Amino acid sequence: MKLSEYFPVWDQLTEAQQNMLEHSAVYREIPKGTLLHNGELDCLGMILVESGRLRAYIVSEEGKEITIYRLLSRDICLFSASCMMKNIQFEVTVEAETEAAVRIIPPSAFRGVMEESAAMANYMNELMAGRLSDVVWLMEQVMWKSFDSRLAAFLLEESALEESDVLKITQEKIADHLGTAREVVTRMLRYFQGEGAVKLSRGTIEILDRKKLEATAR
Amino acid sequence: MKLSEYFPVWDQLTEAQQNMLEHSAVYREIPKGTLLHNGELDCLGMILVESGRLRAYIVSEEGKEITIYRLLSRDICLFSASCMMKNIQFEVTVEAETEAAVRIIPPSAFRGVMEESAAMANYMNELMAGRLSDVVWLMEQVMWKSFDSRLAAFLLEESALEESDVLKITQEKIADHLGTAREVVTRMLRYFQGEGAVKLSRGTIEILDRKKLEATAR
Repeated sequence: MKLSEYFPVWDQLTEAQQNMLEHSAVYREIPKGTLLHNGELDCLGMILVESGRLRAYIVSEEGKEITIYRLLSRDICLFSASCMMKNIQFEVTVEAETEAAVRIIPPSAFRGVMEESAAMANYMNELMAGRLSDVVWLMEQVMWKSFDSRLAAFLLEESALEESDVLKITQEKIADHLGTAREVVTRMLRYFQGEGAVKLSRGTIEILDRKKLEATAR
Repeated sequence: MKLSEYFPVWDQLTEAQQNMLEHSAVYREIPKGTLLHNGELDCLGMILVESGRLRAYIVSEEGKEITIYRLLSRDICLFSASCMMKNIQFEVTVEAETEAAVRIIPPSAFRGVMEESAAMANYMNELMAGRLSDVVWLMEQVMWKSFDSRLAAFLLEESALEESDVLKITQEKIADHLGTAREVVTRMLRYFQGEGAVKLSRGTIEILDRKKLEATAR
């Protein structure tokens, strides 16, 4: 995939800037489960996702997790370059949720272009605003939606991402995504099963009644 | 207050850009309680706070509120210019929590400078990153902190803002700030009173034992 496909402002960069980005970008294939970034690792740079899926999440002092967002093909991960962003005061962890292929632009190269190009800096603004909107949306969910609708929405999202009605995901993992305890997930899944919306078996959750889940998610 | 005091990148602007901002900025005094911005009003522009205090908050469909952050003297409100920011998909409301004096730079003038100046665009990035950090912090509070520590932290913050141990704030208002119901606030305040940390009387909350509140907030 060309870099110009990631950056709609590509044509507003000088040839020197385009070359700088092209030549510094490193291609990497990443096994599932790899931690690409967390607060304590080095500042990797901008990650451009070619294929696969990354997950950005935060972790509480007690080790509870909540997923902030997922990154798919054509998405750009800003926070893996948080050393470039003044004022990012939270620690985000980015992991490869599936096997993934990415291109990484090192901080030094990207910083140079951002400092010179108002177009690129404004595009980064747009990206950041998008992430901020995601986090505000998530906070609204957490504060104001009851857990049944969050869980139903999560199962539907997961099914769309995996393109399957049979989800191979543990209840532990779902609890991590939603920032809650496994017991809470188990109880609600059993309730969904009782309603005929899903069928639970060891290690999988099958969606039986999509309409019912959609109604709950709303 | 000079505009250069708000923008650390002031010296990196051209004289034309500086003049553009200076001449377009409008001074306004704002009575307490004024709504400066909400999703449905016009796009006011960048608000630079000279004195007083603004509050940015979101509102749920059922009318519940939660404060995202407060803006004090020297702060810049980005979201009142959300028409300038692509990808801001949430509706934030900004109100004057006290009487306030502000300068407002209209969107057209600000957008022009931001599109030309990489320095300004990068500074806006920093501001946005700061807001994003605030929201993530808040989400962590909401998800992982128990309500007693959130309330204690709120009372201490309020006391610092008002520079007083006697807070003139209703329990209803506190509930709005913290995104909960008044009954929940009342119950916890009574518990704090029982512990000797505060004294409640009609319309005021007096902080008696700051150390105890600090210990709870941690």
